[in-house]
Amino acid sequence: MDAEIIAIGTELLLGQSVDTNSSWLARNLARLGFNVFRLGAVGDNERRLAEAIQLALSRSEVVLTTGGLGPTVDDVTRKAVARALQKPLVFHEELAKALEARFKARGLEYAPSNLTQAFLPQGATLVPNPGGTAPGFWCKSGKGHLACLPGVPSEMKSMFEATVEPALRALDPRGTVILSRVYRTTGLAESLLNEKILDLFEGSENPTVAVLAHAEGVDIRLTARADGSEAAVALLDALGKRMTERLPQHIYGWDQDVMETIVGRLLATRNLTLACAESLTGGLVAQRLTQVPGATRYFRRGYVTYSDESKSQLLQVPDSVLRSKGAVSPETALAMARGCRQADGADLGVSTTGIAGPAGGTPEKPVGLVYVGLADEANAWVREFRFSGTRDSIQRKTAQAALEWVRRYCLQLPME
Amino acid sequence: MDAEIIAIGTELLLGQSVDTNSSWLARNLARLGFNVFRLGAVGDNERRLAEAIQLALSRSEVVLTTGGLGPTVDDVTRKAVARALQKPLVFHEELAKALEARFKARGLEYAPSNLTQAFLPQGATLVPNPGGTAPGFWCKSGKGHLACLPGVPSEMKSMFEATVEPALRALDPRGTVILSRVYRTTGLAESLLNEKILDLFEGSENPTVAVLAHAEGVDIRLTARADGSEAAVALLDALGKRMTERLPQHIYGWDQDVMETIVGRLLATRNLTLACAESLTGGLVAQRLTQVPGATRYFRRGYVTYSDESKSQLLQVPDSVLRSKGAVSPETALAMARGCRQADGADLGVSTTGIAGPAGGTPEKPVGLVYVGLADEANAWVREFRFSGTRDSIQRKTAQAALEWVRRYCLQLPME
Repeated sequence: MDAEIIAIGTELLLGQSVDTNSSWLARNLARLGFNVFRLGAVGDNERRLAEAIQLALSRSEVVLTTGGLGPTVDDVTRKAVARALQKPLVFHEELAKALEARFKARGLEYAPSNLTQAFLPQGATLVPNPGGTAPGFWCKSGKGHLACLPGVPSEMKSMFEATVEPALRALDPRGTVILSRVYRTTGLAESLLNEKILDLFEGSENPTVAVLAHAEGVDIRLTARADGSEAAVALLDALGKRMTERLPQHIYGWDQDVMETIVGRLLATRNLTLACAESLTGGLVAQRLTQVPGATRYFRRGYVTYSDESKSQLLQVPDSVLRSKGAVSPETALAMARGCRQADGADLGVSTTGIAGPAGGTPEKPVGLVYVGLADEANAWVREFRFSGTRDSIQRKTAQAALEWVRRYCLQLPME
Repeated sequence: MDAEIIAIGTELLLGQSVDTNSSWLARNLARLGFNVFRLGAVGDNERRLAEAIQLALSRSEVVLTTGGLGPTVDDVTRKAVARALQKPLVFHEELAKALEARFKARGLEYAPSNLTQAFLPQGATLVPNPGGTAPGFWCKSGKGHLACLPGVPSEMKSMFEATVEPALRALDPRGTVILSRVYRTTGLAESLLNEKILDLFEGSENPTVAVLAHAEGVDIRLTARADGSEAAVALLDALGKRMTERLPQHIYGWDQDVMETIVGRLLATRNLTLACAESLTGGLVAQRLTQVPGATRYFRRGYVTYSDESKSQLLQVPDSVLRSKGAVSPETALAMARGCRQADGADLGVSTTGIAGPAGGTPEKPVGLVYVGLADEANAWVREFRFSGTRDSIQRKTAQAALEWVRRYCLQLPME
């Protein structure tokens, strides 16, 4: 079964907001076995929207729309669907009462304009919106199915999952199910990673493999096509296993996994505490660690030591080291890692120092030169990096490298 | 003149990437006076793409496409355009040589497949790509104009600005120019902000006004329509001036302005230095300050004091205060602000403490209770906030409130 998605809103045509709903819906339709061949966006114009819906229904069995379901005159989805399907709009008493009750329960004024939301095209089924006021609906038209959802992403997603997805499953699309899985790696440049897995990559038509580099690392996306979810998962598992064997230390997570959550879990289960001392990352390592609920179990303090004085005062980096080697040096990184660990009484200390740019580089110490230090009770280590990119990406690459080192320490994996 | 935009790539239909190119192009077309009525996305399928191009050219004078210009078999834009326009693809010797030279200059292997990029539809004009290998092109078809650009956003944008925009201007669209400007506010809830400006808002048909709330504050977007850029700017200026008079202390910037840059500039021009002591923001304030190049002029150290012990050791928060009032208290916030200022010898100290959640709240100290402290040489102040939302949004709101207070201190604006 073919499907199309139409995003509705003049703000999309003016470029004032980016449509992320269509992408989310497309991913879910692929997962359910629908073939999405087209996405489109139209403005708050009844005639053009009605045309777009008619065209889509003439080509595809399933059409999903997002947006245009509010109570204002700009919200034309209800009218456009009625026009496209040549059905009248019908007032739903119960829906009107539920809308009014919702407003009153929240102490909001109930404007008569909200009544427009109680009109649905004749024959439409309500798609309830537990998270907001704009109700959605689902219509049949010949052999086509049309579901209209609001544009607020959180409402759209929960309504899709609760009501639209079961209805779509019931259509039994029997199409190819497309499932993706992202393996997240860090610490290996895209070209080196390619060398390690290129034969798996090239030899595989299903799943297909795509490699995406960004500041925090390289993501490997596997996309499997199969007759059902189970078969698709099995394909992903099989290639994923071979991929993981090739990259035993570089894959730190899957899909939505982020490094700070992975590191936090490892520290917590090992009863380890961590302190950090940051120069060029300026607090990013601490900020990422403390984004995770419950970080207090393993993280108690961080230092942002931007000036030399703060490095010597707070972290006992010897003045002689700062004078002779400079703030950006392996010696300083080591002393910072040791210093923060000791002051906190933590099990581990991690440190960052370097030149984030865009200014401040010299031939000996260019922009992108970074040292990351790690200390435990017995030892301290330092690694040098040469990162490229903007200030922001150098800071992000450094923070990721620091967290990755903590991860590998916990797992006793080599840093190579 | 009407315009349409087509984004090309099967990854868009699978929901594996979000199309941000169309939004950027739409904004620029509106700025130039084109009416964008439709956006669309199609996959890497020659026939469907050719149909989409034909349909778009039948409705609109200008059609822009992004993507599908690489050297692989998946890159079908050249062929689809040739099919849609019923023109043959023509080999461009010079272009082939330039492509080969580009590869060699970078030490990359030049695969024969790259030669496909030297074929353009007959009559097409080259749109050079100084930032990458995929060249773009521009065709006429009847009274329609078609420009095909690559999908890599940075390449697409620079090619649009250098080559496509001048060509579009030369078409003299004479349409309504649509310009937007965003006024960025913080410290005022959306409902209170609405009260202050609702009459301006409701009384204005041009510019129109849209209000968008997010964790860092509320943005007010004015959108003006006029016969030319100058007239549009004059409309934005006139309403913007009245808006600014109503919100003298809440507007901190325009468009892409971010608080950390504004605060950094204020500190630098006033020769003030700032230290920070963070509990629930966990380094976010320091991280934002140090994202700005040259932050070292006004920022030298920050403390992430997550544990009570670190608050007393590093910031001299009295143990008696921590015991009797708790870490989340006005007294602790005051002591933290004073403590970090003093330790650094900075002009100002700013502090954050509170309950970010999702766990850890009590009836007396619920999730979202936040104290922000500010200290200068003579005084110290504290403010209480009750923020709602996720852990992440409570952290972000707090960091923004802390930076906003520093901004107002510099400008001697009241915090009310």
